[in-house]
Amino acid sequence: MKHFKSFASDNYAGVLPQVMEALQKANIGHARSYGADEITARTKALFNQVFEADASVYFVFNGTGANVLSISAATQSYNAILCADTSHIYNDESSAPETFTGCRFFPLPANSEGKIEPVTIRERLIRSGDVHYAQTKLISITQSTEYGTLYTPAEIKAIAELAHENGMYLHVDGSRFFNAAAALDCSLADISSKAGVDILSLGGTKAGMMFGEAVVVFNKDLNQHIAYKHKQIMQLASKTRFIAVQFEAMLHNELWRQTAQHANKMAQLLHSVLHKYAQVKVTKPVQANAVFAEIPAAWYEPLQEHFPFYIWKDSTHEVRLMCAFDTTEEDIIAFDNAIAGLQR
Amino acid sequence: MKHFKSFASDNYAGVLPQVMEALQKANIGHARSYGADEITARTKALFNQVFEADASVYFVFNGTGANVLSISAATQSYNAILCADTSHIYNDESSAPETFTGCRFFPLPANSEGKIEPVTIRERLIRSGDVHYAQTKLISITQSTEYGTLYTPAEIKAIAELAHENGMYLHVDGSRFFNAAAALDCSLADISSKAGVDILSLGGTKAGMMFGEAVVVFNKDLNQHIAYKHKQIMQLASKTRFIAVQFEAMLHNELWRQTAQHANKMAQLLHSVLHKYAQVKVTKPVQANAVFAEIPAAWYEPLQEHFPFYIWKDSTHEVRLMCAFDTTEEDIIAFDNAIAGLQR
Amino acid sequence: MKHFKSFASDNYAGVLPQVMEALQKANIGHARSYGADEITARTKALFNQVFEADASVYFVFNGTGANVLSISAATQSYNAILCADTSHIYNDESSAPETFTGCRFFPLPANSEGKIEPVTIRERLIRSGDVHYAQTKLISITQSTEYGTLYTPAEIKAIAELAHENGMYLHVDGSRFFNAAAALDCSLADISSKAGVDILSLGGTKAGMMFGEAVVVFNKDLNQHIAYKHKQIMQLASKTRFIAVQFEAMLHNELWRQTAQHANKMAQLLHSVLHKYAQVKVTKPVQANAVFAEIPAAWYEPLQEHFPFYIWKDSTHEVRLMCAFDTTEEDIIAFDNAIAGLQR
Amino acid sequence: MKHFKSFASDNYAGVLPQVMEALQKANIGHARSYGADEITARTKALFNQVFEADASVYFVFNGTGANVLSISAATQSYNAILCADTSHIYNDESSAPETFTGCRFFPLPANSEGKIEPVTIRERLIRSGDVHYAQTKLISITQSTEYGTLYTPAEIKAIAELAHENGMYLHVDGSRFFNAAAALDCSLADISSKAGVDILSLGGTKAGMMFGEAVVVFNKDLNQHIAYKHKQIMQLASKTRFIAVQFEAMLHNELWRQTAQHANKMAQLLHSVLHKYAQVKVTKPVQANAVFAEIPAAWYEPLQEHFPFYIWKDSTHEVRLMCAFDTTEEDIIAFDNAIAGLQR
Repeated sequence: MKHFKSFASDNYAGVLPQVMEALQKANIGHARSYGADEITARTKALFNQVFEADASVYFVFNGTGANVLSISAATQSYNAILCADTSHIYNDESSAPETFTGCRFFPLPANSEGKIEPVTIRERLIRSGDVHYAQTKLISITQSTEYGTLYTPAEIKAIAELAHENGMYLHVDGSRFFNAAAALDCSLADISSKAGVDILSLGGTKAGMMFGEAVVVFNKDLNQHIAYKHKQIMQLASKTRFIAVQFEAMLHNELWRQTAQHANKMAQLLHSVLHKYAQVKVTKPVQANAVFAEIPAAWYEPLQEHFPFYIWKDSTHEVRLMCAFDTTEEDIIAFDNAIAGLQR
Repeated sequence: MKHFKSFASDNYAGVLPQVMEALQKANIGHARSYGADEITARTKALFNQVFEADASVYFVFNGTGANVLSISAATQSYNAILCADTSHIYNDESSAPETFTGCRFFPLPANSEGKIEPVTIRERLIRSGDVHYAQTKLISITQSTEYGTLYTPAEIKAIAELAHENGMYLHVDGSRFFNAAAALDCSLADISSKAGVDILSLGGTKAGMMFGEAVVVFNKDLNQHIAYKHKQIMQLASKTRFIAVQFEAMLHNELWRQTAQHANKMAQLLHSVLHKYAQVKVTKPVQANAVFAEIPAAWYEPLQEHFPFYIWKDSTHEVRLMCAFDTTEEDIIAFDNAIAGLQR
Repeated sequence: MKHFKSFASDNYAGVLPQVMEALQKANIGHARSYGADEITARTKALFNQVFEADASVYFVFNGTGANVLSISAATQSYNAILCADTSHIYNDESSAPETFTGCRFFPLPANSEGKIEPVTIRERLIRSGDVHYAQTKLISITQSTEYGTLYTPAEIKAIAELAHENGMYLHVDGSRFFNAAAALDCSLADISSKAGVDILSLGGTKAGMMFGEAVVVFNKDLNQHIAYKHKQIMQLASKTRFIAVQFEAMLHNELWRQTAQHANKMAQLLHSVLHKYAQVKVTKPVQANAVFAEIPAAWYEPLQEHFPFYIWKDSTHEVRLMCAFDTTEEDIIAFDNAIAGLQR
Repeated sequence: MKHFKSFASDNYAGVLPQVMEALQKANIGHARSYGADEITARTKALFNQVFEADASVYFVFNGTGANVLSISAATQSYNAILCADTSHIYNDESSAPETFTGCRFFPLPANSEGKIEPVTIRERLIRSGDVHYAQTKLISITQSTEYGTLYTPAEIKAIAELAHENGMYLHVDGSRFFNAAAALDCSLADISSKAGVDILSLGGTKAGMMFGEAVVVFNKDLNQHIAYKHKQIMQLASKTRFIAVQFEAMLHNELWRQTAQHANKMAQLLHSVLHKYAQVKVTKPVQANAVFAEIPAAWYEPLQEHFPFYIWKDSTHEVRLMCAFDTTEEDIIAFDNAIAGLQR
């Protein structure tokens, strides 16, 4: 039973073979450092093509780096950020945003699908111009969300408009942005540049890269300081070509769509497996590559021995099961069998 | 009608005559700067006597300075602070705490009296030792609260114990601490040193001083860095004697109790006045020097012309009326007459 | 011998009688808080008149607050500040500027008079646009300097032009700005607005106020964020009228000039006294209210018993003697006598 | 002429074949994220063996991250850091250290070899306990230095002792630490754990890794906060195994020594080539993999066309030439020929 995949997180997976191959091909001779190389230049051009925009692209090491860089590009230290109270940026990135930018978070109650709604945002748009109150300047949403659900293009547009009408910017934490676009069967542009997003953290690592994310700036206002912040925030790689080339491989012929579709499909399969069991209650809509379900606590130990997963909410025995690019039908069947074995 | 007092805030009031006199007396000759003078030394000794503790005392300029200094003494940059979602520290001090300390706030829902309850705190005591999660290290409560209500000594003790059992500290934002002690008819020690409080922001300005607050450190763990932070945080006065001497005047013969009792009594009188009117609903218990009430919106303009007050919640027409050391019965009667005039 | 004045610092002095009187007069009834009061409004208007400029004025509590607020108005976190290696901002304000603004200091060698020269500044104007290098955005000079010397209006203009030609701003730390203007026999505008200064920390405390300094913004570019930073930096007084009214008293009929001239004159007298002694070497030009001199180390103890002073550089026995508004001829004569007594 | 190596920086080179191979081998199945995997565990054990110490090891993405994490582990925000005025940390890492830690730098004049000497450090050990002065807590040296020179084990020991006697810590910025140990023909422990170093930034990228550095903590005092700072500072990789395995390859059979020795040898060869030309003056001792030389300015353009290098000091036409693991004798000969061609 040893070699089945974990459902703990999509960052337990390794590196896509196509990405590994690209890394090897990039390892030839010398290249200018800190992003002045040719691979980086051509990958940035590819971003503009794919995102159908004249965007600025900053390659960074990890998701927290991408989010903090995005915030730092859009704010002054007396600003506040609105985000879902369930968001990764609020719960899983230590106090990195505060320490680096000085800003305040105002967490908003997420709805049952882990999304924030315009009405909720609107309630917090108060005290503009009041120096005693941290001035809200940025809304951050997660796509796909921490619950594995999706904002539709129309929902994003609505939030973007609300942001812009109130002198604010919209950031998307897209650590699983590829899964979202694959699930929505849309282009990357449809849920970013074309939906009014100002700045995007585009995740690479969870999608099958070794390391690396990209901050994509659509709103030119946010270009003023970001190149300096990129270095200052410790996210400028000396051998940037090795991040760029991974993204090139991901974007080439939409490799990302193929692999994300697969992960999403595995989540659907997992959903259908879990659905069979009366003791299991799937708790969130399964829209991308995550499955949330309440299971008997007695199952934790025997299941986790071979199939690690994350206990989301211990009080209700809700667990999170993530599928990755390398999750196989065989893995799901083995998991099904393991559950079935517990029934006897 | 010009000379009636405002109910907008107790910081609209000026300086107590006894405090003014003390300032004049302190203005003789040269004194060592930055708190090394004799007046500061003897006032610190007086604090220890009054608070019945071997405390360290740091005089600062204002309330935000006192709160941020307190937080900075108790935290590292990866820490989080629990406070009421109604708290001044969370809503009215810009992002000063984040910018200076790097810490995260986790706001907790206040109960109907504006207090946080142990059960609410306990729910947030999660993920200790998890590097991804800002580590909760400090609980901050306000006494008297932003709703003009009071934590009893027993309630403070319960929160302090909960804090200490979980390796955390308890901070009290006491910008109206004198009003609280006067209303509870207890000593300053009863609701601080004797109740397990680790560090206190003791307000002077709203109580009738010209400027100045004090940070009182009861837990010696918090002495490690605070003297350096005091300077670094821009709150060390060169002519400290002029803050110290004001506190000396306040503490001498419990001047604070007499003046705070008066302000509290005026709030009760105001309450009884408002209570007479069917259109008015007093919304919070009147325990210290604040009265919260829903009033007809049509009253805003005619009343505020002579009696400014603060609109707390526009959606329900809830207003806040503060009484200060210099509010008089005559002021309240005039206000009553003004309301009566609106009835006709 | 007890009642002679200290030469340790001009902040050992108390409060000018005229300032004390103004404080009393301002203590009438209620006034709007946080600077929205009438006294503050009319004092700001007076600043504009005196500085012959359409300036923005922010009243703060102390000198470090004024300097950090000035820096924060002119910089982003990836910026650097040039200042003299002898400057107060670099040596005596802890790491407050870094902690609050994130910026880097590049200290420049001061010349023998404690001033920085354009040629020295020019050498550090390197690597503009290089993201690896903290980008120099602000030059900060001290007037009068830490050595008690003066920048002439022409010298300030030259530095301002150099700053502006290179996309930088000029800040003046003027904790003893009144002494400088009095010594130069010029207007406050001559060495600020008219000399190209962008932002000024104008000192009140050392000049005879109880507390309070002002940040005066001449360059409108620096108005964008400063009102928010003012609060965030913990330097916005709730009872601002009591800072404003002190400045009003200082500016009224140029009270500042009369008192600063006196202090400067006392420094000249002290200079002439010291000059008589063969064992004493005055080490800096005496231009404002400070005298620097090398004296025999054996004199430290007997002299400091009655006349505290600051040992500037122990290795050469260089001491600093400051005169204040309340230093008297009698004080200087007594000091002379004390030295004479050591000769026998 | 296209394929010769650049002398601009050792970070222009790609990835060692052995490291590439290790990356491929690590890419099998799932592994726990954020450093909880087996490869990371065994690599940390290997570090302890190699460094002959019970050290804590934190894998980070880049050199600035390593340095800032090291500083943050050793300081509070009111502290100061001593470093050479030539150091990378002071000149080439933006204001990242200040922004993240709040600390002040006091740059010290480096000697002609780019090293700081105990006598220089001692002069700055002033004002301990003075709250107005940023309190010096950390000394940071670079090994090999920015001039390509070396601190001997005895020199490091002397600085470490000076640091410890004064309650300070010693940090080594070792972005080229392997080159130093290879040049000194000593173990990694000889110039770190055994020399009294408290915390080390160990460089991997310039030595031939794709990305990744390690912070090695020898002094257990510095373990108190570092795990939390590691995440907070955005330097905790989700797929840490891919950093760890690169270091494993570097340390295995001292691959690092072999490759660093080669680079150092190429620098010696380059030195001997340059030495032949009368117009060239080698300006620093060539001890590791860097050569500094003054060359005719007219050579810049023709030489840089095929052999990019860094202009260190334009005023004296001093250039820096770095050799990497992949620099070949053929590269040097071609460079020699190119210079010779300029002579005609």
